[in-house]
Amino acid sequence: MDIDQFIRKVPNWPKPGILFYDITTLLADPKVFAYVIDELIRPFQNEKIDKVVGIDARGFILAGVVSYKLGAGVSLIRKKGKLPYQTLQESYSYEYAAETVEMHEDAIKKGERVLIVDDLIATGGTLEAATKLITRLGGEIVGIAAIIDLPSVGGSAKLKNYHLHTLINYQSEKVV
Amino acid sequence: MDIDQFIRKVPNWPKPGILFYDITTLLADPKVFAYVIDELIRPFQNEKIDKVVGIDARGFILAGVVSYKLGAGVSLIRKKGKLPYQTLQESYSYEYAAETVEMHEDAIKKGERVLIVDDLIATGGTLEAATKLITRLGGEIVGIAAIIDLPSVGGSAKLKNYHLHTLINYQSEKVV
Repeated sequence: MDIDQFIRKVPNWPKPGILFYDITTLLADPKVFAYVIDELIRPFQNEKIDKVVGIDARGFILAGVVSYKLGAGVSLIRKKGKLPYQTLQESYSYEYAAETVEMHEDAIKKGERVLIVDDLIATGGTLEAATKLITRLGGEIVGIAAIIDLPSVGGSAKLKNYHLHTLINYQSEKVV
Repeated sequence: MDIDQFIRKVPNWPKPGILFYDITTLLADPKVFAYVIDELIRPFQNEKIDKVVGIDARGFILAGVVSYKLGAGVSLIRKKGKLPYQTLQESYSYEYAAETVEMHEDAIKKGERVLIVDDLIATGGTLEAATKLITRLGGEIVGIAAIIDLPSVGGSAKLKNYHLHTLINYQSEKVV
């Protein structure tokens, strides 16, 4: 299936010059959504996965269903100030701003095998922070699955030491 | 299954005097998570559901898997400024602050049958705004499913004209 046609391109969002890849049109179609979930899981379905880590907030939509299908638990990485219990934090800068993300200190147990899920890889800042948080908690990162890769923005190169699995590439996120 | 033991109670969060019901400990356990999803869906599994609406952000974790299992699409209700395309808005006040939520204007098609999913019903402000947005878009609300109800806070009474389905009640959200 060519999923490109189900991804809406929104120019100049969230700021001028940025072309935003909107997956809400993909999520809205049950057949396409199911296809995307099944394809995201494919390389990992015979792996033992203990936890699927979802990235706040669009990653949560995918992480719940991926974890259910893999028989894993869900762990959350959230923007600072959203998690109620004791957390670890990582800060990074990305294309639009600086950001701090957090994970509960009991979100991953030492030795657990972890799959990270998000909608899109751009600069990779959030995902790199995620790998640091998971590693600090003693988790073993089995892979990173995302629907969209924007390789020209550099995130997938930064994360090349992990098993990266993406379904579609766009060569530029800039409006031409 | 008694899911109470898997819900962490965090006193004085997000502000003094509030007891917060933290579902991250429930999500982390694959058996409990799968049980909760199956129970959330149970009353609706023989209904025709076109869209499952998830509420930003914890509702997203549930909405993705509920929609996948029901063969429905996912639609998102997000805090203001997070959705890239044309939106409808609703504002409301709730226990901690005032809030505006948005939905893409193409998130629901006229006549679609909609199930709303969230983690918790407190004041019901967000859920009531969700019902207004869905109704403005011509959707038919089949039900509202949430893990936790805090009936003493008044939300479930406010939403009593809908088919409300919750898995556990707590009588007070205040720290005693």
